[in-house]
Amino acid sequence: MKCFVMAVLAAAVIAGFTRTATAAENGKKTKKQFTLNPIGTVQKAGGKTRLVIDKEVAPALLGLDGWSHVWVFWWFDRNDTPQRRATLQVHPRGNRNNPLSGVFATRSPARPNLIALTLCKIISIKDNVVELEKIDAFDGTPVLDLKPYIPGYDSAEATVPDWLKK
Amino acid sequence: MKCFVMAVLAAAVIAGFTRTATAAENGKKTKKQFTLNPIGTVQKAGGKTRLVIDKEVAPALLGLDGWSHVWVFWWFDRNDTPQRRATLQVHPRGNRNNPLSGVFATRSPARPNLIALTLCKIISIKDNVVELEKIDAFDGTPVLDLKPYIPGYDSAEATVPDWLKK
Repeated sequence: MKCFVMAVLAAAVIAGFTRTATAAENGKKTKKQFTLNPIGTVQKAGGKTRLVIDKEVAPALLGLDGWSHVWVFWWFDRNDTPQRRATLQVHPRGNRNNPLSGVFATRSPARPNLIALTLCKIISIKDNVVELEKIDAFDGTPVLDLKPYIPGYDSAEATVPDWLKK
Repeated sequence: MKCFVMAVLAAAVIAGFTRTATAAENGKKTKKQFTLNPIGTVQKAGGKTRLVIDKEVAPALLGLDGWSHVWVFWWFDRNDTPQRRATLQVHPRGNRNNPLSGVFATRSPARPNLIALTLCKIISIKDNVVELEKIDAFDGTPVLDLKPYIPGYDSAEATVPDWLKK
């Protein structure tokens, strides 16, 4: 009986520890989460801007050379902290003269999900390397996805707030 | 001694089980992964299309009503299987007459990271609910992020492949 109690206690301690670790990994969220695996990396060197796509997913580039522009989805990896991901409102462009705005109304790099989006002009594609005209991401930034830019689907006659026009 | 062995064995069994579960959760990837927490849900009901944003992140909507159009980032949740996420090439629009293309050269819903992107016209915003003109996502789809559409930054004079023009 004593042995059984010890075994159960040992099991309970470890199970308890494991539950704690899992809760921490999940950031205390009980809701469903989704997982992103980077597909490549931004490389800025020698005056060139390139996306170096992981070789195992490089077959997914087939035919991208038929398009002039691509949406690059990347991760604001320098902001991947609980504090930055809890940021809900900012002054756009860090300028306190701009009205306090929700991050969903700005392109702030601090936001709940750190997905960044940039429309880029393709210069060339060779094997697993896509050379771009430019991108507003740092060297070494993880890349998440590429999608071709479709003019009719991806553009609109739009209005914007006054602070953007300054 | 016997008690100690039993306790260690019980601990080892539970720890072993936990390790297996964690390896499975990580999909056998050793590379860095990133985590997305949905910020809301697509709701299609009564002829209306709405994004119902989680109340805890609703302050991030402040000022979105100053923009006419918003990028909605959502998750292709019906494709969240290892097989669909391993899809690297497809015939666009499921039409075998279209040339085999890499998923990064199409908007295929089967791709390594299941991020979907739709440009939407905003009808109204009330509290945590954003009414849209329309969106090509199912009712109940998880929403990941919202970003305002900035005409100069988000549009380009672009060329597209022949199969798209048909």
